[in-house]
Amino acid sequence: MALVPSHSAAPPPRCATPVPPPFPHPWGGSLGPDECLSFPCPVLREDGFGARPQYECYLAELPPGQTNKEGGSVVGYVLFTYTYSTWKGRNLYMDNLYVQPQFRGQKIGKRLIEKAAQAAVSKGCGQLRMHVANWKAKDKDFLARQGGEDLTAKEGWTLFNLDEDALRRLAAQSTI
Amino acid sequence: MALVPSHSAAPPPRCATPVPPPFPHPWGGSLGPDECLSFPCPVLREDGFGARPQYECYLAELPPGQTNKEGGSVVGYVLFTYTYSTWKGRNLYMDNLYVQPQFRGQKIGKRLIEKAAQAAVSKGCGQLRMHVANWKAKDKDFLARQGGEDLTAKEGWTLFNLDEDALRRLAAQSTI
Repeated sequence: MALVPSHSAAPPPRCATPVPPPFPHPWGGSLGPDECLSFPCPVLREDGFGARPQYECYLAELPPGQTNKEGGSVVGYVLFTYTYSTWKGRNLYMDNLYVQPQFRGQKIGKRLIEKAAQAAVSKGCGQLRMHVANWKAKDKDFLARQGGEDLTAKEGWTLFNLDEDALRRLAAQSTI
Repeated sequence: MALVPSHSAAPPPRCATPVPPPFPHPWGGSLGPDECLSFPCPVLREDGFGARPQYECYLAELPPGQTNKEGGSVVGYVLFTYTYSTWKGRNLYMDNLYVQPQFRGQKIGKRLIEKAAQAAVSKGCGQLRMHVANWKAKDKDFLARQGGEDLTAKEGWTLFNLDEDALRRLAAQSTI
């Protein structure tokens, strides 16, 4: 198993032709409905591997010659950006950590979060944050084993979201 | 009231000399203990207004000649970065929206979040996200009036955090 960073010189695994859901994995192969990827494939590729990356990621790739059952070589990934806190300075925000179900139990997720932690340390981040659905006990247990704390349970933090319609309304109201 | 972006050509309001808490406001004046700023002043300034900005913000500044009771001109701010979602592409993450207590009720917070929304729309963001402590009813009401939804209540999202010690341990374990 190789962990390939988005900032490596090598081109990413080829994108499949865009098709309706279940979506092709933008970095090779095709993933099922629980893969947490719904953004159009070419956009996701360009945004990460293009000239002006909007995120960083590591792909977990099978050794040459091996493929998953969909014919792809990528079986997991971690995707992250950097945020900023007036209390802690730069933080790493992990949008997603994913391993295909048939490749779980091989410490691939552990290897991926270690790479995110390395990126965080190298960029001077004091924290790594991510969101987990509160019914995903296995995911929460995994993060807890890595030293993670549930700040919603401990400190009462709730996540608010303004969708695109709300943003457009607000932006249009600005008079300054 | 002027809203001054961190990416304006003009230099930011001068930083006070670093002193122990209560911390000087990095953009001018000095704020009380609820001001949500604890990062060392020169670092916070450099990280936002220096050569390689790590965040964007808008400062709410009093008209020339007016000051707050601490002698500063900045009475509020909104501070944000960009994250990335495999479902929605680029998002805006609002770390903090703050108005000094004596200047509340004048729609300054509303003007500031409108500027964040403008930034989000101009950068093609489909979402604006932020965290609010669940006991802060006024803050939650404010966000709800702007069209915000509590995704922790609606969808069960919880916030996990790995602190610096956990990050260093994880990073050191990486063998790939």
